[in-house]
Amino acid sequence: MSPDLTITDVRLTPILVADPPLLNTQGVHQPYTPRLIVEIRTADGITGVGETYGDTKYLELARPFAARLTGRRVSDLNALFTIADEVSVDDSRTSSQVDVGGLRGVQTADKLRLSVVSAFEVACLDALGKALGLPVHALLGGKVRDAVEYSAYLFYRWADHPEGVRAEKDDWGAALDPASVVEQARRFKERHGFTSFKLKGGVFPPDEEIAAVRALAEAFPGHPLRLDPNGAWSVDTSLRVAQEIGGLLEYLEDPALGTPAMAEVAARTDVPLATNMCVTTFAEIKEAFARDAVQVVLSDHHYWGGLRNTRELAAVCRTFGVGVSMHSNTHLGISLAAMTHVASTVPDLHHACDSHYPWQSEDVLTERLVFRDGKVAVSDAPGLGVELDRDRLDFLHRRWQDDDGALRERDDAAAMRVAEPGWVTPSVPRW
Amino acid sequence: MSPDLTITDVRLTPILVADPPLLNTQGVHQPYTPRLIVEIRTADGITGVGETYGDTKYLELARPFAARLTGRRVSDLNALFTIADEVSVDDSRTSSQVDVGGLRGVQTADKLRLSVVSAFEVACLDALGKALGLPVHALLGGKVRDAVEYSAYLFYRWADHPEGVRAEKDDWGAALDPASVVEQARRFKERHGFTSFKLKGGVFPPDEEIAAVRALAEAFPGHPLRLDPNGAWSVDTSLRVAQEIGGLLEYLEDPALGTPAMAEVAARTDVPLATNMCVTTFAEIKEAFARDAVQVVLSDHHYWGGLRNTRELAAVCRTFGVGVSMHSNTHLGISLAAMTHVASTVPDLHHACDSHYPWQSEDVLTERLVFRDGKVAVSDAPGLGVELDRDRLDFLHRRWQDDDGALRERDDAAAMRVAEPGWVTPSVPRW
Repeated sequence: MSPDLTITDVRLTPILVADPPLLNTQGVHQPYTPRLIVEIRTADGITGVGETYGDTKYLELARPFAARLTGRRVSDLNALFTIADEVSVDDSRTSSQVDVGGLRGVQTADKLRLSVVSAFEVACLDALGKALGLPVHALLGGKVRDAVEYSAYLFYRWADHPEGVRAEKDDWGAALDPASVVEQARRFKERHGFTSFKLKGGVFPPDEEIAAVRALAEAFPGHPLRLDPNGAWSVDTSLRVAQEIGGLLEYLEDPALGTPAMAEVAARTDVPLATNMCVTTFAEIKEAFARDAVQVVLSDHHYWGGLRNTRELAAVCRTFGVGVSMHSNTHLGISLAAMTHVASTVPDLHHACDSHYPWQSEDVLTERLVFRDGKVAVSDAPGLGVELDRDRLDFLHRRWQDDDGALRERDDAAAMRVAEPGWVTPSVPRW
Repeated sequence: MSPDLTITDVRLTPILVADPPLLNTQGVHQPYTPRLIVEIRTADGITGVGETYGDTKYLELARPFAARLTGRRVSDLNALFTIADEVSVDDSRTSSQVDVGGLRGVQTADKLRLSVVSAFEVACLDALGKALGLPVHALLGGKVRDAVEYSAYLFYRWADHPEGVRAEKDDWGAALDPASVVEQARRFKERHGFTSFKLKGGVFPPDEEIAAVRALAEAFPGHPLRLDPNGAWSVDTSLRVAQEIGGLLEYLEDPALGTPAMAEVAARTDVPLATNMCVTTFAEIKEAFARDAVQVVLSDHHYWGGLRNTRELAAVCRTFGVGVSMHSNTHLGISLAAMTHVASTVPDLHHACDSHYPWQSEDVLTERLVFRDGKVAVSDAPGLGVELDRDRLDFLHRRWQDDDGALRERDDAAAMRVAEPGWVTPSVPRW
């Protein structure tokens, strides 16, 4: 009578999805970015889906991981971490202090494994929920809110990818100064109802970004604003920016790189510091919290190891009086659904979550998730409440297959070199 | 097709269960101790059970809590904490720094509420598991071990409760010196297979308890030993004991009272310190961990607020490199089953858990849980895998009804005064 939760089949599909020319301190987004779609099938024929980063180093881990899953049950979520421990990581993949794009903090073998675990965990939860007739949030103890608030994720950007490069076009136009950033924000607000705004900074000298924040504050009085230069600033620059526009900011995100620098900034300003670079693993928490280096941790369920780990991170933060919200990198609707489910269960979520999703013109779902009043409604359908569009998946997979390998590794600096041949990843602090 | 998880009925049954004359630094266990049994019924007629402390102050909270549960679903576990916030606590119940028996650390309104939440949470998990055909451990992400190890919980004790007092008899005899403590340990080992031993101390001057530990070490070479004086010692006494028998101990439990004293002891000895008195709430963690006051936190799912909170505590401890294991107070088989389920899911459980259960001659289950080789097997039956014996429950409830109120509040000092009329709770440090 009980459903058979045994995993009989695991399918991995690497894809390339269109990404606009969004700028950050490392460079620019590639025209297509790799993602990995995971499907898990149970003995009863129920399928669950998950997604994570799709660069080769993730695929190389996901394959042996998938092979070990068959025969286990989708309810054996704690065992995923045991499996992760068994799957070895090629150390050459984790030698650098910063990973793809240099925007997500340290890179360790554990973090790489957890980024892979997260896709399988979400797929297991989706399948388990479908098998039991329960939404994923119910498997996490139940939602405490019916909709999850997201912030508009503003980017400096070009109108188009460099000439001669194969790319999908969009009609957002360039945003390279305060006026066009405000215009972008206005369009985000009109289209999706967002009421808080985050600007990805670290692209232009601080004074230009200060001017952009001031323009946003003027255009949207009372709306929470954030600025995130991805650690591009020195302590002194961070403090100067905090002094100049701190009063306009909900928080300043990763102004400087690493716990010592963040701690120094935090000690000398009242502006809360948020991070998805300084604290990105459980191992980094103890020192960062002891030094009061961060006031808000932005969880990313991908590299924290899934939705249940995200809840554990929230519990750790709550215990230490540190706020929690959510980071986002380029992702599709599966991950947005996963983020929404887990965020709906975290009691003390006092900041709107980040999401790149509005920038993604492509998805692998039959129906896109929708922002209303800046919020995504929490689905009460069994599982994640999303459905895979197999034709789209196949199309995006063929794009990955057809690629000569250049786009299979996300590299924002390499993408920048197409436009600016002399570009090298700026040393930190850049300003 | 999906089960209807709506809660239609909640039943609270206070009971009095037999307790032997076990000694601690506050006094002696009463002949009968109050417990509260919670039953939750769903629309489909499925029943889940939980248990917690049964003193009046818990009952007074459990009643309005139960009234708010009807109409919710047994899967709405996060909502239990919202309900807890709504139920007000009579402040006069939480004014003292130590609670019943003075053996479980601070008493706050939150902790009182969480002790009540835990019984409802376990009952919800039991019902949810039965409804879905899943064991409770699967609802917590799945077991990572098939059996959970417990330690023998040795007590100094009298042979009988004071003459003229109504009590159940047992054949354990008195244990008031090293030889009889060893004899008690031998019987525990023979009967249940325990291979680690914890002695409840703080009863006799430290030298007598040191002698008992030495006798145990001689009788059971290589077996992990623990001594727990419930905070009865000064820092100097704690350090002297640590120096004399530290090499024989797996850990020393709550030698001194409070974070400052524990931190001072910890700073001056290599013997790990465990606690169920210094860190008993999430609010106490930050300071205690910052001062490195404790090396092992002994969770009690009752006052930490349930099985999911216990897992969150374990995550916090893991993050900070602090060990975790489990504390126990007088409890029945429902709680032992709950402890076993959650313990089976915690990956880094490096110490055998405590349990008073072998001392409990009475239970409310049709079948007692069994220790084999010192371990309780993790049930894979739906829910907790236990069945309520309604006749026994009614019998024990009638005992509670028939009581004039004297036994409805556990009070180890009052119980001691029956034998020693001049007894007052010793001031701390006692030695």
